[in-house]
Amino acid sequence: MTISVDMFFLRPDAQGTLQMQIRQFVAEGILAGRFPPGARLPSSRRLAAHLGVSRITVAQAYADLVADDYLSARGRSGFYVSENAPRPHEIDPPPAAVRETVDWARLLGPRTPSSLRRGKPRNWRDFRYPFVYGQADPTLFDQQNWRACLLMASGARDFHAMTDDRYEEDDPLLVEYIARHTLPRRGILARPEEILLTLGAQNALWLAATTLLADPRRCAAIEEPGYPALRDILRQLRCRVLPVATGAEGLSPGAVPRGVDVLFCTPSHHCPTGATMPLLARRQSLEAAEAGDCLIVEDDYEFEIAEGRAPLPALKSLDTAGRVIHVGSFSKSLFPGLRLGFLVGPAPFIAAARDLRATVLRHPPGLIQRAAAHFLSLGHYDALLRRIQRAFRERREVMLRAVAEHGLQPAGETAPGGSSLWMRAPEGTDTEALARRLREASVLIEPGRPFFGTPQAPGHYYRIAYSSIPAERIPEGIARIAAALRAG
Amino acid sequence: MTISVDMFFLRPDAQGTLQMQIRQFVAEGILAGRFPPGARLPSSRRLAAHLGVSRITVAQAYADLVADDYLSARGRSGFYVSENAPRPHEIDPPPAAVRETVDWARLLGPRTPSSLRRGKPRNWRDFRYPFVYGQADPTLFDQQNWRACLLMASGARDFHAMTDDRYEEDDPLLVEYIARHTLPRRGILARPEEILLTLGAQNALWLAATTLLADPRRCAAIEEPGYPALRDILRQLRCRVLPVATGAEGLSPGAVPRGVDVLFCTPSHHCPTGATMPLLARRQSLEAAEAGDCLIVEDDYEFEIAEGRAPLPALKSLDTAGRVIHVGSFSKSLFPGLRLGFLVGPAPFIAAARDLRATVLRHPPGLIQRAAAHFLSLGHYDALLRRIQRAFRERREVMLRAVAEHGLQPAGETAPGGSSLWMRAPEGTDTEALARRLREASVLIEPGRPFFGTPQAPGHYYRIAYSSIPAERIPEGIARIAAALRAG
Repeated sequence: MTISVDMFFLRPDAQGTLQMQIRQFVAEGILAGRFPPGARLPSSRRLAAHLGVSRITVAQAYADLVADDYLSARGRSGFYVSENAPRPHEIDPPPAAVRETVDWARLLGPRTPSSLRRGKPRNWRDFRYPFVYGQADPTLFDQQNWRACLLMASGARDFHAMTDDRYEEDDPLLVEYIARHTLPRRGILARPEEILLTLGAQNALWLAATTLLADPRRCAAIEEPGYPALRDILRQLRCRVLPVATGAEGLSPGAVPRGVDVLFCTPSHHCPTGATMPLLARRQSLEAAEAGDCLIVEDDYEFEIAEGRAPLPALKSLDTAGRVIHVGSFSKSLFPGLRLGFLVGPAPFIAAARDLRATVLRHPPGLIQRAAAHFLSLGHYDALLRRIQRAFRERREVMLRAVAEHGLQPAGETAPGGSSLWMRAPEGTDTEALARRLREASVLIEPGRPFFGTPQAPGHYYRIAYSSIPAERIPEGIARIAAALRAG
Repeated sequence: MTISVDMFFLRPDAQGTLQMQIRQFVAEGILAGRFPPGARLPSSRRLAAHLGVSRITVAQAYADLVADDYLSARGRSGFYVSENAPRPHEIDPPPAAVRETVDWARLLGPRTPSSLRRGKPRNWRDFRYPFVYGQADPTLFDQQNWRACLLMASGARDFHAMTDDRYEEDDPLLVEYIARHTLPRRGILARPEEILLTLGAQNALWLAATTLLADPRRCAAIEEPGYPALRDILRQLRCRVLPVATGAEGLSPGAVPRGVDVLFCTPSHHCPTGATMPLLARRQSLEAAEAGDCLIVEDDYEFEIAEGRAPLPALKSLDTAGRVIHVGSFSKSLFPGLRLGFLVGPAPFIAAARDLRATVLRHPPGLIQRAAAHFLSLGHYDALLRRIQRAFRERREVMLRAVAEHGLQPAGETAPGGSSLWMRAPEGTDTEALARRLREASVLIEPGRPFFGTPQAPGHYYRIAYSSIPAERIPEGIARIAAALRAG
């Protein structure tokens, strides 16, 4: 059998080089049973002409397939599907249509979907003015050096770092770098046994909450407004949750009720307003925690992209009573799809969180850990941070000017730092409806309601981020928000 | 200030190329404040002579540092630490020694360390005869093509697949490949909404157990002996757990007690004996599940490396009542440090598990998902599987011959498939003591006791795997086990 050249085509939406596409097409044909063992492939000349690619491209794809024993070369007579090629597995006939015999609604109870996605369309990149929060910007990220670090981390020297089942352990290179370089910048000194790597800040908060609040009689306090994903975590745990109102200086220590076991807060950069807790309030929080036998989980999710004012020391760095658990993340400084963050806390707590993590997922992928360790230790990370800081400062200035020009009202911190502004629309505005209308004008904003825990939450707040929009588009985007509010 | 050439040295244990090491040394010196802005670097000629490397190596490292603004070049006068170089952050004085004010033992309760690591030394690669289970073998893995796929997955086209915060979603490319190619080989037809990617099989089992057994009145049944990590998960959930004795044909459907809500089993390849559940028993299990309103979680952790006999269809493929949840993993076929697996089940169950996963960790890293999607769809995965299957078949044959020659007793399946043998030492042998003695002879075996759930577990079983030992070392390794047993 000779396989007709007409069976070959390149898909217009295909990924990878032409050579890879040809390789993939042949391999798939063999695995699907369309190209049986012994069948002869079209000559590279004929296939190249048919596909409109160079002959060397086809020849290289064929050579590659010979190396993996999909094809065999027989001197001048050409290429054949190898007798040793992977066989299509015999597939049993599909089962008879499945009868529904399980009452899933009763078994699983009412569904509590995560609030992460709320108000965030999948296709945000198709919008011209995407004031979306927390995604990476390809114009700022250092792809070239990141790829070089991936190559290092997947090379022969790092083979075991990438492939090993580490059970409950982390990559010692990354832990050491965080201990020696990342944490000292926040004033934190920690030994390796006081550090646990996590799948991003989400996983760090989940591990901390589950370790400390598994007993439903225990009580957590959270900021109001505050981080919606934290509220999801605590709802899942079914522990008691008390909201603490926050103001222009973030959470006020005096507002934390008695009897709280764990206080969750974002002192460096309150989510979502951007407020910074002053030094005095930090000290008071620590004193109150000790007096009330309370622990504090400090979510320091955004500190590394702050620039322009001297960062205040982390709460953890002021903690002489061993009561603060610190959450860090590389989601904003590298990219969120990396899923890499960390917990810093007293060794007995970290050991318990490590046992829990081992049961839930073992450890973050070795490749991710080692590539990050290289990227950090080679200094690419600091160079990237400076690039992000400069770009964000510029975008923030452009945005604040446009906001002022159009008479829009910031509702939170306007001093430098962070990647977003928290805004207040005129009272009575429904910013969820506003966001829907703005989509028609190719503008994405984030309605503020999900940041509040109560059903009576005010509906007139919204967040606009500048982490994924170029500076030159910001003025027009802000103008459109202003126009939509006027038309409102 | 000119930085003396004597401040430079290369660490003998350093990683990466010489050029990278020089770059890293300079960047670290700047970040640590040892090399202040304006300081002059040694000339590339002098530094090259001092370090004993070529001048071009130093020149390239310097050029790289100039590109990232760590250094600036001033014509002929040389290289200086850039005025724009990243500054060492001011570090607050370390906190006063921490007073212990938290009673962690009372707060956290008794520690329940994960059993994953038990009996598995970190330095297993230093042993000459490592019969360790579940680690990757660098002589079999296709590093070159894996790295090519990593480069694709980290390139401009895949930027958003790698970097995006996907919230609760998976990479559609990988889900589609699993639905169209991986699952049909097991006879399973599933739509994308019936598939959830996980951080390996560990995470898949945890998500399934937590979704189905969060109510402590519910009851799970597990195989005895069985997978220790599953026992950890169920202990953490505090649900009722009933062991079901398994025999030469794996779990017997008649042995499952009434009143079980979820049955966990490994029908394709029982852990740890390797037994395969016959087709009739599979059908009976499904009938019993429907009659008793029970769900079945099928852990199919090792099927893709099975070879030599026609694989039986997965339990899931026979399930017409929608009662089976299927767990798959790439840990054995690619490598465990990848942390990639999947759940397949009815859509309402997958939706609930997805909500839970979003709260715990959001999603597996985008880069890992996309690189795996490329590796699979380009056919490298199937070529790798065949290489693994051939090598494992050869090693298994060598091992079975050596085992027979030395009169050792297999206690489980000896037919082809899998990556290990389950063994029985003479009654009364303590295989934990045996394993300790064998370490002195550079042999690693796995004592069998952790696979049993009862304190009265027999102590004379052990497991020997051939996934990380070359065939030529197997006979001597087996000879040493036999000698240690005789000396016992």
